[in-house]
Order: sequence, then structure tokens, then C-alpha cells
Amino acid sequence: MQSFDWPVRVYYEDTDSGGVVYHANYLKFMERARTEWLRQLGFEQNVLKDEHNCLFAVHSMQINFRRPARFNDALMIRSEMTQTSGASMQFEQSILRDDELLCSASVRVACLDALRFKPCPIPSFILTEMQCEC
Amino acid sequence: MQSFDWPVRVYYEDTDSGGVVYHANYLKFMERARTEWLRQLGFEQNVLKDEHNCLFAVHSMQINFRRPARFNDALMIRSEMTQTSGASMQFEQSILRDDELLCSASVRVACLDALRFKPCPIPSFILTEMQCEC
Amino acid sequence: MQSFDWPVRVYYEDTDSGGVVYHANYLKFMERARTEWLRQLGFEQNVLKDEHNCLFAVHSMQINFRRPARFNDALMIRSEMTQTSGASMQFEQSILRDDELLCSASVRVACLDALRFKPCPIPSFILTEMQCEC
Amino acid sequence: MQSFDWPVRVYYEDTDSGGVVYHANYLKFMERARTEWLRQLGFEQNVLKDEHNCLFAVHSMQINFRRPARFNDALMIRSEMTQTSGASMQFEQSILRDDELLCSASVRVACLDALRFKPCPIPSFILTEMQCEC
Repeated sequence: MQSFDWPVRVYYEDTDSGGVVYHANYLKFMERARTEWLRQLGFEQNVLKDEHNCLFAVHSMQINFRRPARFNDALMIRSEMTQTSGASMQFEQSILRDDELLCSASVRVACLDALRFKPCPIPSFILTEMQCEC
Repeated sequence: MQSFDWPVRVYYEDTDSGGVVYHANYLKFMERARTEWLRQLGFEQNVLKDEHNCLFAVHSMQINFRRPARFNDALMIRSEMTQTSGASMQFEQSILRDDELLCSASVRVACLDALRFKPCPIPSFILTEMQCEC
Repeated sequence: MQSFDWPVRVYYEDTDSGGVVYHANYLKFMERARTEWLRQLGFEQNVLKDEHNCLFAVHSMQINFRRPARFNDALMIRSEMTQTSGASMQFEQSILRDDELLCSASVRVACLDALRFKPCPIPSFILTEMQCEC
Repeated sequence: MQSFDWPVRVYYEDTDSGGVVYHANYLKFMERARTEWLRQLGFEQNVLKDEHNCLFAVHSMQINFRRPARFNDALMIRSEMTQTSGASMQFEQSILRDDELLCSASVRVACLDALRFKPCPIPSFILTEMQCEC
């Protein structure tokens, strides 16, 4: 099982007046990392949508906010793909500051028909590439 | 010339680690107010888009951030429509906390063809209603 | 066990180019509802922070994104407090459009020392009020 | 007069259901670029705040939204510092997709006392470095 690391810098936009990263924004960081992983595998999501009528949407997630990230932190988003079935992918993602674990999540991403927003099979040319990652 | 007031509460999501509302978020508050004004005049923007292929987009703005809003503040967004021409509207908007002016902006909103994202005339049934407001 | 309903309107700021509400933004809607519930019970979070050095932060959540909300939707955020212990509260929250369930979540909120960001007991005057809700 | 280029990738979080980048989010992109420019000059804003009680806040801006950016676009944020006086800096910023100008802005950034949120002189060690840029 391979993993993919993507760096994220914390800007003012990401923080809140508690002095830390606003909790919902960790979900953005994790989506950036999944997007960049797909890109590295050769899949641009605008092309997938326009040419294959397929988009990926978060179906469900379990997320633990362990320690706060702060303004200006240099974070690393670590992602592992633990399962790819016909219509969904399962990711384990963690947010690290150096070696400190700040946030961890299990994320299930579904493949949807882009027009009807209904589950559809992951196109086989993607599935092949992804299953090599698991 | 009429004006329209719309209340906005400041939540954690709106603030940053400086302890105040993040500057870009005032633009969201001002758009909520313009949307609600259109709604009060009888125009739902999803209907305008779906049935009339027309959407409104900010063309340009001048904005002054005078004093900071803070977490939990109850703000009032005051909007005036100062000009409506064939393809755009001009708004003067201010953000108030009680009688204190926190932020002011001049906002030009253009009517766009929703598919091509090109300027198009404001539909006449909207123009008539809006010009009564100026 | 009581519940609390809070309405949320979907604006452009909440949506993404998939045509639906961006998944992380449902977390904002749920936090607004928890904040307003605390307010209705008499607790202003800026006062809790300034006078009691206490803030509430999401510790963990399980969230299911069932059906998408769209631009201009009028949503209802329904919240139930299912457990309040010494240092945390458990909420069940759901996001509804009319009678349709769009999103559901179990959210654990911890009480933190505002300066050190470490867990601390919920102040007793809050606990009393909240346990009446469970 | 020097300029600084910073790349920004457009993710779903940045877009809205019009299919384009939500207008307020261009302000985030421009702040990321200013932050990275300061970092390249040797100034970390968390250090400026903690050790020098000084933070930078947008005082006012004029912004023109010329053409829309879209999901997955690779943008370049180009920044020039056109004036640095005792308590503020003036930036000209533009957002480009390849050679196409999407958005341009004049941004005045003020130096504030971090505790009182009142204008204060830019510390001389910063001023010296910045005036070399103008």
C-alpha cells in the first residue's frame, strides 16, 4: 500500500479567532491532497467530469481533531488508499506538523454521475491505476 | 433611493487568528445581503439562472476596512442601489455594528449569460423592479 | 431529550462547481446551529472565553453526506444533545431540506482551556443547564 | 520595482455553483502571495506578531474581476509593491492564467498594533527591506 504526501501552509484564511485552524478547513486540506494524488496518477478531475461525466464526492468520514494547527504552520497531509471497490474509494488521511499527528480521518469517496449526482462505477482505466496503489 | 438592511451574525468560521473577521469574508456578508434584497423583490437567483439563463456576478469593487468585527458580533449589512443600467447595477454597501461603521464598499454587479459568462442585458422584468429602488 | 432547529440559507459562498454545497461547509452549518443553541440557553461564547477562559472545540465527528444541498436551498439544521459529561458534549445533528435528510453527523465537542487548548471541565453553571437538555 | 510570483491551484473549495472561482476567494489568493513574499524577504508573520506585536491587515482595496478562473486552473499571482510609507504598503496584484489577466487589484495594507488593532509604524528593520523592493 502506497501513500502520498502533500504539503499545506496555514494562512490567515484557514484560522479562526480561537487562534487555531478552523475545524472544517482540515477537510479542505485533505481534499487538496486527494486531488493532487489523482493528478499525480494522471487524472485531472475537470477532464474526468467533462469527458467521462464522472466526479468524486465525499460519501462519509470519521475525523478526529487531536491537536490544533496554527497560523503559519507548515503541515504535511499524508494519504493512503486502503480500498477501492467498484464505486468508491477508502482513504486514511492524517495531518502532521513535523512528526506530530494533528488530525486523522477515514474518508470514503464515491464516484458519481456528474449530471444526476447518483453513484456510478469508477471508470475501469482509473480503477486499474488506483488498485495498484492499494 | 431605498435601502435594504440584512442582519449577519459572526461565527467562528468568519474569523481569523488575528481575533477579527477575515477581510475576504466581508464580501460574503455583502453578497448575502444583495441576494436577500433580490429575493425580497421577488427574484430567486436559481430561477433566474435556470429559466432566464442569467446570473449576477461582481464586476468590480472598492472596499474600505475601517474597524474590525469580532466573533459573535451582531452586524447589519446596509445596501443601497445607486444605479441600474442595461447590464449592471451599482450598490453602496456598509457593514455596521450598532451605529459604528466597520466596512464600506462600492460594488458593481454585472448581469451575465450563465452559459457563456459574457455580459448580457438585465431582463426587463427585473430592470423595471430595480429601477424603482434607485 | 430536546432538540433545537436552526434555519440556514445556501448562498453562492457555500457551493462549489459541482453545483452543490461543498462538503466541508456542512460543518459550518452545524456549528452555527450549536452556537445558536448555546445562545438560546443563555451562553454567549465570547463571554465564556473572556470571563471563564473556556471554549468549545470539535473533538471528533462521524458525518454522512447523503444527498446534496444546492444553491438557494432553505435548510434546517436539527440538533440533539445526547450526552453531557464532565468535559464534553455529544450532539446528533442532521441537515434537512423540507423532510429530506441531506446530511447527518455525530459530533463530540470538548471544553478547552482557552489559553492552553487543553481539555477542562465544563463550568458547572453550563453543565446544569445542558444536562436538562439531554 | 521588483515583483513576486506565487502559483495557486484552484480546488473545489475555491469555486461556486456558477462554475467559477467565488469572487471573495481571489482575495485569499492575493493574501497568500503577499504572505509568501514577506516570507521570502525573511519575515514570518507569526514571529512579527509574537515578538514585535505587529500584524499586517488590509486597509482598503480596489479590485476588478475581469474573467473567471475555473476548477483545476493553475494560476499565477503577480505582486508588485508600489509604495511603502511609515505605516502602510501599497501593492498592485494581478491573477493570471498563462498570459490571460483574470483579476487585478490595488491593495493597501496597514501595519497594526496586534493587541489594540490600531495603526502603528512598520518596524524599521522591515521597512528597510521593503523599500528596497519598491
